[in-house]
Amino acid sequence: MARTGRRPGRSGTRDAILVAARESFTASGYDQASIRDIARRAGVDPALVHHYFGTKQELFAEAIDLPMDLVAILEAFVGGDRDQIGERVVGLMLSVWDSRTDRSPLVALVRSAVTSEHAARMLREFLVSVLFERLAEALRSPDAKVRASLAASQMIGLLIARYIVRIEPLASLPAAQVVATIGPNVQRYLTGDLGLA
Amino acid sequence: MARTGRRPGRSGTRDAILVAARESFTASGYDQASIRDIARRAGVDPALVHHYFGTKQELFAEAIDLPMDLVAILEAFVGGDRDQIGERVVGLMLSVWDSRTDRSPLVALVRSAVTSEHAARMLREFLVSVLFERLAEALRSPDAKVRASLAASQMIGLLIARYIVRIEPLASLPAAQVVATIGPNVQRYLTGDLGLA
Repeated sequence: MARTGRRPGRSGTRDAILVAARESFTASGYDQASIRDIARRAGVDPALVHHYFGTKQELFAEAIDLPMDLVAILEAFVGGDRDQIGERVVGLMLSVWDSRTDRSPLVALVRSAVTSEHAARMLREFLVSVLFERLAEALRSPDAKVRASLAASQMIGLLIARYIVRIEPLASLPAAQVVATIGPNVQRYLTGDLGLA
Repeated sequence: MARTGRRPGRSGTRDAILVAARESFTASGYDQASIRDIARRAGVDPALVHHYFGTKQELFAEAIDLPMDLVAILEAFVGGDRDQIGERVVGLMLSVWDSRTDRSPLVALVRSAVTSEHAARMLREFLVSVLFERLAEALRSPDAKVRASLAASQMIGLLIARYIVRIEPLASLPAAQVVATIGPNVQRYLTGDLGLA
Protein backbone atom coordinates (compact mmCIF):
# COMPACT_ATOMS: atom_id res chain seq x y z
CA MET A 1 0.00 0.00 0.00
CA ALA A 2 2.92 2.41 0.67
CA ARG A 3 3.64 4.52 -2.41
CA THR A 4 6.50 6.94 -2.88
CA GLY A 5 7.04 8.32 0.57
CA ARG A 6 5.21 11.48 -0.48
CA ARG A 7 3.08 11.14 2.66
CA PRO A 8 5.44 9.80 5.29
CA GLY A 9 2.75 9.62 7.98
CA ARG A 10 0.49 7.37 5.98
CA SER A 11 1.46 3.90 7.17
CA GLY A 12 1.71 5.16 10.76
CA THR A 13 -1.81 6.55 10.51
CA ARG A 14 -3.18 3.35 8.97
CA ASP A 15 -1.58 1.28 11.72
CA ALA A 16 -2.91 3.62 14.40
CA ILE A 17 -6.42 3.22 12.99
CA LEU A 18 -6.08 -0.56 12.92
CA VAL A 19 -4.88 -0.63 16.53
CA ALA A 20 -7.76 1.63 17.54
CA ALA A 21 -10.22 -0.52 15.60
CA ARG A 22 -9.10 -3.70 17.37
CA GLU A 23 -9.43 -1.96 20.74
CA SER A 24 -12.86 -0.63 19.91
CA PHE A 25 -14.22 -3.91 18.49
CA THR A 26 -12.89 -5.76 21.52
CA ALA A 27 -14.32 -3.28 24.01
CA SER A 28 -17.72 -2.72 22.40
CA GLY A 29 -18.37 -5.68 20.13
CA TYR A 30 -18.88 -5.41 16.40
CA ASP A 31 -22.39 -3.97 16.49
CA GLN A 32 -21.65 -1.23 19.01
CA ALA A 33 -18.28 -0.16 17.68
CA SER A 34 -18.40 2.92 15.48
CA ILE A 35 -16.12 4.57 12.96
CA ARG A 36 -16.51 7.75 14.99
CA ASP A 37 -15.20 6.08 18.16
CA ILE A 38 -12.37 4.38 16.30
CA ALA A 39 -11.34 7.71 14.74
CA ARG A 40 -11.39 9.34 18.17
CA ARG A 41 -9.18 6.62 19.66
CA ALA A 42 -6.73 6.99 16.75
CA GLY A 43 -6.79 10.78 16.94
CA VAL A 44 -7.89 11.22 13.33
CA ASP A 45 -10.93 12.46 11.46
CA PRO A 46 -13.64 9.83 10.75
CA ALA A 47 -13.41 10.73 7.07
CA LEU A 48 -9.82 9.51 7.07
CA VAL A 49 -10.93 6.14 8.46
CA HIS A 50 -13.43 5.81 5.63
CA HIS A 51 -10.81 6.96 3.16
CA TYR A 52 -8.33 4.27 4.17
CA PHE A 53 -10.66 1.40 5.01
CA GLY A 54 -14.12 1.98 3.53
CA THR A 55 -17.00 0.66 5.62
CA LYS A 56 -17.00 -0.63 9.20
CA GLN A 57 -17.30 -4.13 7.83
CA GLU A 58 -14.25 -3.70 5.61
CA LEU A 59 -12.30 -2.19 8.50
CA PHE A 60 -13.23 -5.13 10.71
CA ALA A 61 -12.16 -7.62 8.06
CA GLU A 62 -8.78 -5.93 7.85
CA ALA A 63 -8.42 -5.53 11.61
CA ILE A 64 -8.84 -9.28 12.11
CA ASP A 65 -6.77 -10.00 9.02
CA LEU A 66 -9.47 -11.53 6.91
CA PRO A 67 -8.49 -11.29 3.30
CA MET A 68 -9.30 -7.86 1.90
CA ASP A 69 -12.74 -7.05 0.63
CA LEU A 70 -14.66 -9.88 2.13
CA VAL A 71 -17.78 -9.29 0.13
CA ALA A 72 -15.96 -9.47 -3.16
CA ILE A 73 -14.29 -12.68 -2.01
CA LEU A 74 -17.59 -14.17 -0.92
CA GLU A 75 -18.98 -13.31 -4.32
CA ALA A 76 -15.98 -14.96 -5.91
CA PHE A 77 -16.60 -18.07 -3.80
CA VAL A 78 -20.18 -18.28 -4.84
CA GLY A 79 -19.61 -16.98 -8.36
CA GLY A 80 -17.20 -19.80 -9.14
CA ASP A 81 -18.04 -23.49 -9.42
CA ARG A 82 -20.74 -24.05 -6.83
CA ASP A 83 -19.52 -27.59 -6.17
CA GLN A 84 -16.17 -26.35 -4.91
CA ILE A 85 -17.07 -23.54 -2.54
CA GLY A 86 -15.84 -25.61 0.41
CA GLU A 87 -12.44 -26.22 -1.10
CA ARG A 88 -12.09 -22.55 -2.01
CA VAL A 89 -12.97 -21.47 1.56
CA VAL A 90 -10.46 -23.87 3.13
CA GLY A 91 -7.79 -23.07 0.54
CA LEU A 92 -8.12 -19.33 1.03
CA MET A 93 -8.00 -19.61 4.81
CA LEU A 94 -4.88 -21.79 4.67
CA SER A 95 -3.20 -19.42 2.23
CA VAL A 96 -3.54 -16.70 4.86
CA TRP A 97 -2.77 -18.74 7.97
CA ASP A 98 -0.02 -21.07 6.73
CA SER A 99 2.13 -18.22 5.48
CA ARG A 100 2.46 -16.44 8.80
CA THR A 101 4.81 -17.54 11.51
CA ASP A 102 3.32 -15.04 13.94
CA ARG A 103 -0.23 -16.16 13.13
CA SER A 104 -2.90 -13.70 12.24
CA PRO A 105 -5.14 -11.50 14.36
CA LEU A 106 -7.98 -13.88 13.50
CA VAL A 107 -6.15 -16.65 15.36
CA ALA A 108 -5.75 -14.21 18.25
CA LEU A 109 -9.46 -13.41 18.09
CA VAL A 110 -10.49 -17.07 18.20
CA ARG A 111 -8.09 -17.64 21.08
CA SER A 112 -9.60 -14.69 22.93
CA ALA A 113 -13.14 -15.76 22.12
CA VAL A 114 -12.64 -19.03 23.96
CA THR A 115 -11.79 -17.30 27.22
CA SER A 116 -13.38 -13.85 26.99
CA GLU A 117 -17.09 -13.23 26.59
CA HIS A 118 -16.24 -9.84 25.04
CA ALA A 119 -14.18 -11.42 22.30
CA ALA A 120 -16.70 -14.24 21.90
CA ARG A 121 -19.44 -11.70 21.31
CA MET A 122 -17.29 -9.91 18.77
CA LEU A 123 -16.57 -13.09 16.84
CA ARG A 124 -20.20 -14.20 17.07
CA GLU A 125 -21.65 -10.88 15.99
CA PHE A 126 -19.27 -10.59 13.12
CA LEU A 127 -19.88 -14.13 11.92
CA VAL A 128 -23.63 -13.91 12.33
CA SER A 129 -24.34 -10.35 11.28
CA VAL A 130 -21.79 -9.95 8.51
CA LEU A 131 -20.42 -13.17 7.14
CA PHE A 132 -23.52 -15.35 7.53
CA GLU A 133 -25.89 -12.72 6.17
CA ARG A 134 -23.79 -12.44 3.05
CA LEU A 135 -23.43 -16.16 2.71
CA ALA A 136 -27.17 -16.62 3.16
CA GLU A 137 -27.86 -14.13 0.40
CA ALA A 138 -25.33 -15.82 -1.80
CA LEU A 139 -26.54 -19.38 -1.16
CA ARG A 140 -30.20 -18.39 -1.51
CA SER A 141 -31.20 -21.18 0.88
CA PRO A 142 -33.65 -21.00 3.79
CA ASP A 143 -31.19 -23.04 5.84
CA ALA A 144 -28.28 -20.76 5.03
CA LYS A 145 -27.67 -19.67 8.62
CA VAL A 146 -27.65 -23.22 9.97
CA ARG A 147 -25.30 -24.13 7.14
CA ALA A 148 -23.04 -21.18 7.84
CA SER A 149 -22.84 -21.98 11.58
CA LEU A 150 -21.96 -25.62 10.80
CA ALA A 151 -19.22 -24.49 8.42
CA ALA A 152 -17.98 -22.07 11.08
CA SER A 153 -17.67 -24.94 13.57
CA GLN A 154 -15.38 -26.80 11.16
CA MET A 155 -13.30 -23.74 10.29
CA ILE A 156 -12.82 -22.81 13.95
CA GLY A 157 -11.91 -26.42 14.74
CA LEU A 158 -9.41 -26.49 11.88
CA LEU A 159 -7.83 -23.25 13.06
CA ILE A 160 -7.48 -24.53 16.62
CA ALA A 161 -6.35 -28.07 15.74
CA ARG A 162 -3.79 -26.97 13.13
CA TYR A 163 -2.38 -23.75 14.60
CA ILE A 164 -3.10 -23.57 18.31
CA VAL A 165 -3.31 -27.06 19.84
CA ARG A 166 -1.31 -28.50 16.89
CA ILE A 167 -2.81 -31.94 16.69
CA GLU A 168 -0.74 -34.22 14.48
CA PRO A 169 -0.80 -35.27 11.72
CA LEU A 170 -3.27 -32.49 10.78
CA ALA A 171 -0.93 -29.76 12.03
CA SER A 172 1.77 -30.80 9.53
CA LEU A 173 -0.37 -31.96 6.62
CA PRO A 174 0.40 -30.19 3.31
CA ALA A 175 -2.18 -27.50 2.56
CA ALA A 176 -3.36 -29.32 -0.57
CA GLN A 177 -4.25 -32.38 1.51
CA VAL A 178 -6.12 -30.26 4.05
CA VAL A 179 -8.12 -28.72 1.22
CA ALA A 180 -8.83 -32.15 -0.28
CA THR A 181 -9.89 -33.70 3.03
CA ILE A 182 -11.73 -30.85 4.79
CA GLY A 183 -13.02 -28.91 1.77
CA PRO A 184 -15.70 -31.47 0.84
CA ASN A 185 -17.00 -31.50 4.41
CA VAL A 186 -17.40 -27.71 4.38
CA GLN A 187 -19.04 -28.09 0.98
CA ARG A 188 -21.61 -30.53 2.38
CA TYR A 189 -22.50 -28.05 5.12
CA LEU A 190 -22.98 -25.25 2.61
CA THR A 191 -24.78 -26.98 -0.26
CA GLY A 192 -25.27 -30.67 0.58
CA ASP A 193 -28.28 -32.65 1.75
CA LEU A 194 -28.41 -32.17 5.53
CA GLY A 195 -31.86 -33.63 6.04
CA LEU A 196 -33.07 -30.33 7.50
CA ALA A 197 -36.86 -29.95 7.65
CA MET B 1 -21.10 -45.30 42.77
CA ALA B 2 -21.83 -44.58 46.47
CA ARG B 3 -23.11 -47.69 48.19
CA THR B 4 -24.40 -47.99 51.74
CA GLY B 5 -22.36 -45.48 53.65
CA ARG B 6 -20.30 -48.32 55.05
CA ARG B 7 -17.23 -46.35 54.03
CA PRO B 8 -18.12 -42.71 54.63
CA GLY B 9 -14.81 -41.36 53.34
CA ARG B 10 -15.19 -42.97 49.96
CA SER B 11 -16.64 -40.19 47.83
CA GLY B 12 -14.34 -37.67 49.47
CA THR B 13 -11.35 -39.81 48.62
CA ARG B 14 -12.51 -40.34 45.04
CA ASP B 15 -12.97 -36.60 44.59
CA ALA B 16 -9.57 -35.87 46.12
CA ILE B 17 -7.97 -38.30 43.67
CA LEU B 18 -9.77 -36.68 40.73
CA VAL B 19 -8.65 -33.22 41.81
CA ALA B 20 -5.07 -34.46 42.22
CA ALA B 21 -5.25 -36.16 38.83
CA ARG B 22 -6.36 -32.97 37.07
CA GLU B 23 -3.54 -31.06 38.76
CA SER B 24 -0.98 -33.65 37.84
CA PHE B 25 -2.09 -34.02 34.22
CA THR B 26 -2.13 -30.25 33.83
CA ALA B 27 1.29 -29.77 35.40
CA SER B 28 3.09 -32.70 33.77
CA GLY B 29 1.11 -33.64 30.68
CA TYR B 30 -0.47 -37.02 30.11
CA ASP B 31 2.71 -38.94 29.36
CA GLN B 32 4.69 -37.66 32.36
CA ALA B 33 1.91 -37.85 34.94
CA SER B 34 2.02 -40.98 37.10
CA ILE B 35 -0.36 -42.79 39.39
CA ARG B 36 2.33 -42.57 42.06
CA ASP B 37 2.47 -38.76 41.83
CA ILE B 38 -1.31 -38.46 41.76
CA ALA B 39 -1.60 -40.66 44.86
CA ARG B 40 1.02 -38.54 46.63
CA ARG B 41 -0.88 -35.33 45.81
CA ALA B 42 -4.13 -36.87 47.08
CA GLY B 43 -2.45 -38.27 50.20
CA VAL B 44 -3.47 -41.86 49.47
CA ASP B 45 -1.79 -45.12 48.56
CA PRO B 46 -1.27 -45.73 44.82
CA ALA B 47 -3.13 -49.02 45.19
CA LEU B 48 -6.23 -47.07 46.17
CA VAL B 49 -6.02 -45.03 42.96
CA HIS B 50 -5.89 -48.22 40.94
CA HIS B 51 -8.72 -49.65 43.01
CA TYR B 52 -11.04 -46.73 42.31
CA PHE B 53 -10.03 -45.84 38.76
CA GLY B 54 -8.10 -48.68 37.14
CA THR B 55 -5.37 -47.59 34.72
CA LYS B 56 -3.90 -44.11 34.15
CA GLN B 57 -5.85 -43.95 30.91
CA GLU B 58 -9.13 -44.71 32.66
CA LEU B 59 -8.35 -42.19 35.38
CA PHE B 60 -7.62 -39.55 32.74
CA ALA B 61 -10.87 -40.28 30.93
CA GLU B 62 -12.76 -39.78 34.16
CA ALA B 63 -10.77 -36.71 35.20
CA ILE B 64 -11.70 -34.94 31.96
CA ASP B 65 -15.22 -36.34 32.10
CA LEU B 66 -15.04 -38.56 29.08
CA PRO B 67 -17.66 -41.25 29.34
CA MET B 68 -16.48 -44.13 31.50
CA ASP B 69 -14.37 -46.87 30.08
CA LEU B 70 -13.26 -45.24 26.89
CA VAL B 71 -11.88 -48.37 25.36
CA ALA B 72 -15.12 -50.25 25.76
CA ILE B 73 -16.98 -47.32 24.22
CA LEU B 74 -14.59 -47.13 21.31
CA GLU B 75 -15.11 -50.82 20.78
CA ALA B 76 -18.85 -50.25 20.88
CA PHE B 77 -18.49 -47.48 18.28
CA VAL B 78 -16.55 -49.69 15.97
CA GLY B 79 -18.40 -52.87 16.86
CA GLY B 80 -21.73 -51.37 15.79
CA ASP B 81 -22.76 -50.40 12.29
CA ARG B 82 -19.57 -49.13 10.69
CA ASP B 83 -21.52 -46.63 8.56
CA GLN B 84 -22.76 -44.79 11.63
CA ILE B 85 -19.66 -44.37 13.75
CA GLY B 86 -19.74 -40.61 13.12
CA GLU B 87 -23.30 -40.25 14.32
CA ARG B 88 -22.58 -42.35 17.40
CA VAL B 89 -19.52 -40.23 18.28
CA VAL B 90 -21.42 -36.95 17.93
CA GLY B 91 -24.49 -38.31 19.72
CA LEU B 92 -22.50 -39.58 22.67
CA MET B 93 -20.59 -36.33 23.03
CA LEU B 94 -23.80 -34.29 22.97
CA SER B 95 -25.43 -36.58 25.51
CA VAL B 96 -22.62 -35.70 27.90
CA TRP B 97 -22.26 -32.01 27.08
CA ASP B 98 -25.89 -30.96 26.55
CA SER B 99 -27.00 -32.31 29.91
CA ARG B 100 -24.66 -30.22 32.02
CA THR B 101 -25.33 -26.62 32.80
CA ASP B 102 -21.89 -26.23 34.35
CA ARG B 103 -20.21 -27.83 31.35
CA SER B 104 -17.75 -30.61 31.75
CA PRO B 105 -14.07 -30.67 32.58
CA LEU B 106 -13.45 -31.53 28.92
CA VAL B 107 -14.86 -28.14 27.94
CA ALA B 108 -12.54 -26.62 30.53
CA LEU B 109 -9.62 -28.56 29.11
CA VAL B 110 -10.28 -27.39 25.55
CA ARG B 111 -10.65 -23.84 26.81
CA SER B 112 -7.34 -24.14 28.64
CA ALA B 113 -5.66 -25.80 25.66
CA VAL B 114 -6.32 -22.74 23.52
CA THR B 115 -4.45 -20.44 25.86
CA SER B 116 -1.99 -22.66 27.75
CA GLU B 117 0.72 -24.73 26.13
CA HIS B 118 0.63 -27.03 29.16
CA ALA B 119 -3.02 -27.83 28.66
CA ALA B 120 -2.57 -28.01 24.88
CA ARG B 121 0.12 -30.61 25.36
CA MET B 122 -2.12 -32.57 27.68
CA LEU B 123 -5.01 -32.58 25.22
CA ARG B 124 -2.70 -33.38 22.32
CA GLU B 125 -0.89 -36.21 24.09
CA PHE B 126 -4.10 -37.74 25.26
CA LEU B 127 -5.74 -37.52 21.85
CA VAL B 128 -2.71 -38.79 19.99
CA SER B 129 -1.35 -41.38 22.39
CA VAL B 130 -4.58 -42.81 23.74
CA LEU B 131 -7.64 -42.05 21.66
CA PHE B 132 -6.05 -42.07 18.21
CA GLU B 133 -4.05 -45.21 18.87
CA ARG B 134 -7.20 -47.03 19.83
CA LEU B 135 -9.13 -45.65 16.93
CA ALA B 136 -6.33 -46.59 14.55
CA GLU B 137 -6.39 -50.17 15.83
CA ALA B 138 -10.13 -50.25 15.54
CA LEU B 139 -10.33 -48.75 12.04
CA ARG B 140 -7.44 -50.89 10.78
CA SER B 141 -6.50 -48.22 8.26
CA PRO B 142 -3.03 -46.88 7.44
CA ASP B 143 -4.52 -43.39 7.43
CA ALA B 144 -6.16 -43.80 10.81
CA LYS B 145 -4.15 -41.07 12.53
CA VAL B 146 -4.86 -38.50 9.82
CA ARG B 147 -8.51 -39.51 10.00
CA ALA B 148 -8.59 -39.22 13.77
CA SER B 149 -6.99 -35.76 13.72
CA LEU B 150 -9.52 -34.56 11.15
CA ALA B 151 -12.38 -35.87 13.27
CA ALA B 152 -10.83 -34.19 16.30
CA SER B 153 -10.83 -30.84 14.47
CA GLN B 154 -14.58 -31.14 13.90
CA MET B 155 -15.36 -32.28 17.44
CA ILE B 156 -13.28 -29.47 18.97
CA GLY B 157 -14.94 -26.97 16.64
CA LEU B 158 -18.39 -28.27 17.58
CA LEU B 159 -17.59 -28.01 21.26
CA ILE B 160 -16.37 -24.42 20.91
CA ALA B 161 -19.10 -23.23 18.52
CA ARG B 162 -21.97 -24.80 20.49
CA TYR B 163 -20.89 -24.35 24.11
CA ILE B 164 -18.22 -21.67 24.36
CA VAL B 165 -18.62 -19.06 21.60
CA ARG B 166 -22.28 -20.10 21.12
CA ILE B 167 -22.68 -19.44 17.43
CA GLU B 168 -26.33 -19.50 16.43
CA PRO B 169 -28.25 -21.34 15.16
CA LEU B 170 -25.87 -24.23 15.93
CA ALA B 171 -25.78 -23.39 19.64
CA SER B 172 -29.56 -23.94 19.94
CA LEU B 173 -30.06 -26.72 17.42
CA PRO B 174 -31.76 -29.85 18.84
CA ALA B 175 -29.23 -32.60 19.50
CA ALA B 176 -30.83 -34.88 16.91
CA GLN B 177 -30.25 -32.28 14.20
CA VAL B 178 -26.64 -31.83 15.25
CA VAL B 179 -26.15 -35.58 15.00
CA ALA B 180 -27.83 -35.66 11.59
CA THR B 181 -25.85 -32.76 10.19
CA ILE B 182 -22.39 -33.22 11.74
CA GLY B 183 -22.37 -37.02 12.19
CA PRO B 184 -21.96 -37.80 8.47
CA ASN B 185 -19.04 -35.39 8.22
CA VAL B 186 -17.25 -37.13 11.10
CA GLN B 187 -18.10 -40.42 9.40
CA ARG B 188 -16.43 -39.30 6.18
CA TYR B 189 -13.26 -38.44 8.08
CA LEU B 190 -13.19 -41.84 9.76
CA THR B 191 -14.17 -44.18 6.94
CA GLY B 192 -14.83 -42.19 3.76
CA ASP B 193 -12.77 -41.62 0.63
CA LEU B 194 -10.39 -38.77 1.47
CA GLY B 195 -8.17 -39.12 -1.58
CA LEU B 196 -5.13 -39.77 0.63
CA ALA B 197 -2.15 -41.27 -1.20
